[in-house]
Amino acid sequence: MVDCSDLKRTGGVLQDKPVGIVIDHHITNEQFAELNLIEPSSVATCAILAQKLPAWGYPITPDVARALMTGILSDSIGFRTSNTTSTSLRIAADLMDLGANISDLYNKALINRSFAATNYWGYALTRLQHEDNLVWTSLTLQDRANSGYTGNDDADLTNIISSIDPLDIAVLFVEQKANLTKVSWRARYGLDISGLATSFGGGGHPAAAGAEIAGSLDVVQKLVLEATRNYLDTTKVIDNNEGNS
Amino acid sequence: MVDCSDLKRTGGVLQDKPVGIVIDHHITNEQFAELNLIEPSSVATCAILAQKLPAWGYPITPDVARALMTGILSDSIGFRTSNTTSTSLRIAADLMDLGANISDLYNKALINRSFAATNYWGYALTRLQHEDNLVWTSLTLQDRANSGYTGNDDADLTNIISSIDPLDIAVLFVEQKANLTKVSWRARYGLDISGLATSFGGGGHPAAAGAEIAGSLDVVQKLVLEATRNYLDTTKVIDNNEGNS
Repeated sequence: MVDCSDLKRTGGVLQDKPVGIVIDHHITNEQFAELNLIEPSSVATCAILAQKLPAWGYPITPDVARALMTGILSDSIGFRTSNTTSTSLRIAADLMDLGANISDLYNKALINRSFAATNYWGYALTRLQHEDNLVWTSLTLQDRANSGYTGNDDADLTNIISSIDPLDIAVLFVEQKANLTKVSWRARYGLDISGLATSFGGGGHPAAAGAEIAGSLDVVQKLVLEATRNYLDTTKVIDNNEGNS
Repeated sequence: MVDCSDLKRTGGVLQDKPVGIVIDHHITNEQFAELNLIEPSSVATCAILAQKLPAWGYPITPDVARALMTGILSDSIGFRTSNTTSTSLRIAADLMDLGANISDLYNKALINRSFAATNYWGYALTRLQHEDNLVWTSLTLQDRANSGYTGNDDADLTNIISSIDPLDIAVLFVEQKANLTKVSWRARYGLDISGLATSFGGGGHPAAAGAEIAGSLDVVQKLVLEATRNYLDTTKVIDNNEGNS
């Protein structure tokens, strides 16, 4: 099994069965197999595989090189994440030499999107708001209808609003149905919004977390923005105290 | 002089003076110096410099490494352009080892943008239109006022609309003043829209060209879309003929 930190992620399929080998780069991996190869310093499980497969007697064909490159590009968002190392780049260079066209795979994995998805963004971006470095916007069911976007997600809009600079926290509200709203938080380095998400029944990482909250878009937006402002105010106080101590 | 393909680009400053050394990766470089180091296969002039500087006795300090990495990331749009090679990636890996933080530089050079710029996009994206694989939209002076965007350009919106898939041609119309409209074309690989831009007094490359056209946004949009449709229709006919010959 690859890139899977715990058995729950298999959806129960392997719950009662022994697992022979797990290869993963998540530091939270529960090491539930007989043989566990966990390399948390690696940018992607595909980077571990690219390094090990030849030694294990599995040649990297052009098809395999393309698959591994796609995994590296996706996990590192195109070598942009802070865990990208010079080794990550050299592994990618080797995969290019083995037949992976980086430009082609990059565009397919990370850049290209549909007309409807791009149009869908527009409705949220015209509605973009901010108070100091707290930025937020929403996607409504009406936006989805207007744009013809049929996906069930935010079409990657979170990445756009979390790239605004300067930024402390970005919040995206996505109306799911009349009484259910999906909330995504993104925070700058140094903040931890996972507790905020947990307090609304969700979860996640310090810099990226989310929750599905019962309530209309308006009501949830009001509640979540209040809680997020409170978090930022409290955090600022702590920062100041630390500065004075 | 670096990354400069002809003397006109210096704005006349060096017009009457001899130039000692030119280092460039543009295939169109006019080789106007006494010594010309032109490597068109290199992804960026900064990649040439990263390879040559140590041999010339100039050590690559962390500051130099950061500057060179920024040039490589900008020119390759983060290793996404089709001229990115495995050598480009290995040079970038070496620059990381010499002190360039790729994640930090990537975000600064290519990802971060202002609240106003992001909001400005929204107005154009809600207005996005298409006919088959021809996509277009516009940015008005009113959009600029609404968003508070103070830049004089399109805030990189062209990159967003040219990432729509499937796409033949994307056209962005930017209202400059009452009687002047800036037009940017982007085309998929295999098309050449530079002639279209030239026919409107502009210029550029096969896949990316532009023109500043006298006329209101509405009038210019109508004219340019007609010409662009004609180009696509003609190109399709030529394609068919070639297929039959």
